[in-house]
Amino acid sequence: MYYNSLWPFALREELRPAKRYAVSAYQSLCKLAREQALIGTTASALSWDQETQLPPAAVPYRAQQLAYLAGKSHELATSEQWQAALESAEGDLNGDPVQSANLREFRHHFDRATKLPTELVERATETSSRGKAAWSMAREKSEFSIFAPALTDLLEIAREKAALWGYQEEPYDALLGEYERGASTAEVAALFDRFRETGAELAQQAVENSKAVPADLLDADYPIEDQKTLNREIAESLGFDFKAGRIDTVAHPFCTHLGPRDTRLTTRYLERDFLSSLFGVMHEAGHGLYDQGLPEAEHGLPSGSAVSLGIHESQSRLWENHVGRARPFWEKWLPRAAEIFPNLRTLSLDDFLGGVNRAEYSCIRVEADEATYDLHILMRFSLERRLLNRELEVADVPEAWDSEFESLFGFRPPDDAHGCLQDIHWSMGGLGYFSTYSIGNLNAAQLYAKATEDEAIASACEQANYAPILQWMQEHVHAAGSTLFPQELMESATGERTNPEYYLSHLRRRFVG
Amino acid sequence: MYYNSLWPFALREELRPAKRYAVSAYQSLCKLAREQALIGTTASALSWDQETQLPPAAVPYRAQQLAYLAGKSHELATSEQWQAALESAEGDLNGDPVQSANLREFRHHFDRATKLPTELVERATETSSRGKAAWSMAREKSEFSIFAPALTDLLEIAREKAALWGYQEEPYDALLGEYERGASTAEVAALFDRFRETGAELAQQAVENSKAVPADLLDADYPIEDQKTLNREIAESLGFDFKAGRIDTVAHPFCTHLGPRDTRLTTRYLERDFLSSLFGVMHEAGHGLYDQGLPEAEHGLPSGSAVSLGIHESQSRLWENHVGRARPFWEKWLPRAAEIFPNLRTLSLDDFLGGVNRAEYSCIRVEADEATYDLHILMRFSLERRLLNRELEVADVPEAWDSEFESLFGFRPPDDAHGCLQDIHWSMGGLGYFSTYSIGNLNAAQLYAKATEDEAIASACEQANYAPILQWMQEHVHAAGSTLFPQELMESATGERTNPEYYLSHLRRRFVG
Repeated sequence: MYYNSLWPFALREELRPAKRYAVSAYQSLCKLAREQALIGTTASALSWDQETQLPPAAVPYRAQQLAYLAGKSHELATSEQWQAALESAEGDLNGDPVQSANLREFRHHFDRATKLPTELVERATETSSRGKAAWSMAREKSEFSIFAPALTDLLEIAREKAALWGYQEEPYDALLGEYERGASTAEVAALFDRFRETGAELAQQAVENSKAVPADLLDADYPIEDQKTLNREIAESLGFDFKAGRIDTVAHPFCTHLGPRDTRLTTRYLERDFLSSLFGVMHEAGHGLYDQGLPEAEHGLPSGSAVSLGIHESQSRLWENHVGRARPFWEKWLPRAAEIFPNLRTLSLDDFLGGVNRAEYSCIRVEADEATYDLHILMRFSLERRLLNRELEVADVPEAWDSEFESLFGFRPPDDAHGCLQDIHWSMGGLGYFSTYSIGNLNAAQLYAKATEDEAIASACEQANYAPILQWMQEHVHAAGSTLFPQELMESATGERTNPEYYLSHLRRRFVG
Repeated sequence: MYYNSLWPFALREELRPAKRYAVSAYQSLCKLAREQALIGTTASALSWDQETQLPPAAVPYRAQQLAYLAGKSHELATSEQWQAALESAEGDLNGDPVQSANLREFRHHFDRATKLPTELVERATETSSRGKAAWSMAREKSEFSIFAPALTDLLEIAREKAALWGYQEEPYDALLGEYERGASTAEVAALFDRFRETGAELAQQAVENSKAVPADLLDADYPIEDQKTLNREIAESLGFDFKAGRIDTVAHPFCTHLGPRDTRLTTRYLERDFLSSLFGVMHEAGHGLYDQGLPEAEHGLPSGSAVSLGIHESQSRLWENHVGRARPFWEKWLPRAAEIFPNLRTLSLDDFLGGVNRAEYSCIRVEADEATYDLHILMRFSLERRLLNRELEVADVPEAWDSEFESLFGFRPPDDAHGCLQDIHWSMGGLGYFSTYSIGNLNAAQLYAKATEDEAIASACEQANYAPILQWMQEHVHAAGSTLFPQELMESATGERTNPEYYLSHLRRRFVG
């Protein structure tokens, strides 16, 4: 049978017009939001396809399809119809807390979407496209000056956006608000300050203690098909539902959510390091379990959507680090892994865990281990903030980077490619993003600690049975959607706002003992 | 990094509004058509994903996404904006033949899209959904009476549609017009009549001659990964461009076109029959080569779209049968196949070709060989036509089927599941579709014969070099898009309208010798 390409790409499935009856303004607004979600998830499906399936010559047309959908989404979200429904719903509150939360978010996103003039949006798109190209070349040649002019423009655009969106104290507040609703830069800075000194000391001790573990302890041949087998068994055992999701292979791993029961994880494989793909899968499965735990009936509404990157990352880190790098997990899974990979049969559990949790300083954030990872984030947060506040000149970024790096790691990167040019984020205009990685780590430790105060959950975790802790996360984190701000959610789930002590205790137990 | 599921599925890639300058009504219309193509290809991408990737629990939401896109496409194609641009362009013809052809097709599709009242469209959707369910159960129980009420309704809807669309002599004309612009039922019937007697005789002789070939001649173990290797090499050697396409595995093979450089073939694999997937791939690659040969600059317009199913099928059949089942092809490829599959090493080319072209009567159309395939189509065409014209009662379908089958094949199907219930088409309201399969076979033979009148092309084909014949098809068939009606295209390419003698000669040469 042959499908389509006959003009006009005959769409045989006709839309049945909805029956008309009286609906409230709030219901109309929800309908528009669900319509926007249909467009958004469609775009996500095309993007997933682009990363995993798309023939290379098809990229330009795919960009047209995505731009079209982005335009339609923006058109809808800034339409008079949307505005009228929003204003009318706001005048007709019924006291229901979910409705109030949704209206609060609808208003926030409507204001954000309508506050930026087209000229700025166009300039931002153009600059980020130029920025990515310049960054890519600069990194290749390890020459910051190639990227500097684009970074200057990107910072200016970020400041303009922040000014239009509005902020209390500094531009970073407004940018952070894209990822962490209700968060303030000052609070994040205070958190990071409380973490910094002890965190750096613990990292140093972890690196010191790891020197006894050979770097090539686990180096061996791990056939990719066998890695896939193990990864899938483990993802399933954590509770990831393969009837409503899948795992595919990509160059740059991610998790995406194409609808209420369609969560797609991706990973990449190293032939000589099965832990790389496995922890990648556990990380993305953590994101995926959050998505699979969102209330399906609320799909497309704030109340059915993940609340922030810092909460999202708490879930990925929880499964990757608190579950996946802990002794009980490997008590169960090392024997299975050794069935699949014979070289593991000669290792004791202690030796193996030494390899799993081996800490080492490295220049590259994405290769950093649990003990040293957050040091990379702290310095990015501080540099970004100073750049936005004009306390640091773009031209001085390489020197500022290297000296900040040296103060945390005790040595300087060999060149800019291993220093200030390593990450793509700034080049895409992704300012305000990095801090959410560490917020996620802090949240993960706190949520794990709180959940395992329940002895039944703790003892299940000791036996590598994770159904109870998943259920706790579903009830205390996932079910809330975006009805609470992230810090309200932390308070509701754990009794307090994000507190770095939980994470420091965890790092101490794991790496110093 | 984490993508989306944060409300509102933030689409970071903003649409750059087009610069405004004066455009003609025709250009506006083309812009709308290209917009509709963006929606249509997006839906095709989601459908491809549904067939090849979608987690099972995600099916209901995917249906919502597709219905939404179908609705948006229909809304656009029947909009006042479209109508105004169409009328204005029609009043401003400039004599350019491509523009005239596009306007002719725009008008045709606009009229078709606007002539059906919503009530009928809704009823058709509902009935075809009910029809598929009833057919599925009826086939399972081999009990036609379960499907009969739905078929009665589906026929009534088809007659209503035909009446609204308008036709010259009988409802089949209007339905056929969905797939073969400008074709008349009478002309198709005349073609089939000219084919029928000799075609049936040739089939009988082919079946007789094949009795000397053991049914299990090629039965062996063909590992699927090895089949994929061979299929890909062969598809590439035909000219299929893998930078602009791919092959995936599905239950029900198809080819789809997701954009100007994105053509996706699918196939299925039988462990003990490598020819099944190979000829499947050659068939779908034939569709794909047509799509890859359409003029890219005209994408989204009739002038850049395939013209009909009968022309599409001519391309798939040409590569599958005229190329793929011929001696020169296997002179080249049998040695390579035998490298991959050791059991083939003991077979002579003659014996192998005997297996490739072994003919046998079977009840099931989709399993039929080249020699007997069209007999299945002739009887479906005749029954469908009589049903639509009320010359045959629905209740009498099983008996009519079996006796018509007996007259062509010499025996009766054992039950309705192997008879009138075997195909899904009617249950989906796909009336007028079947005849295009045989039109395609007739066209394929005629186009192949005409192209190989050129001695350079013929001798290249003798050496299994298919670049020249592909180029001929690109120039004489693909490049025209839908600027000509299918029969005009046949005339332009071969000097005459579809003539069954070419196909009969081919069958005679191949099966009777």
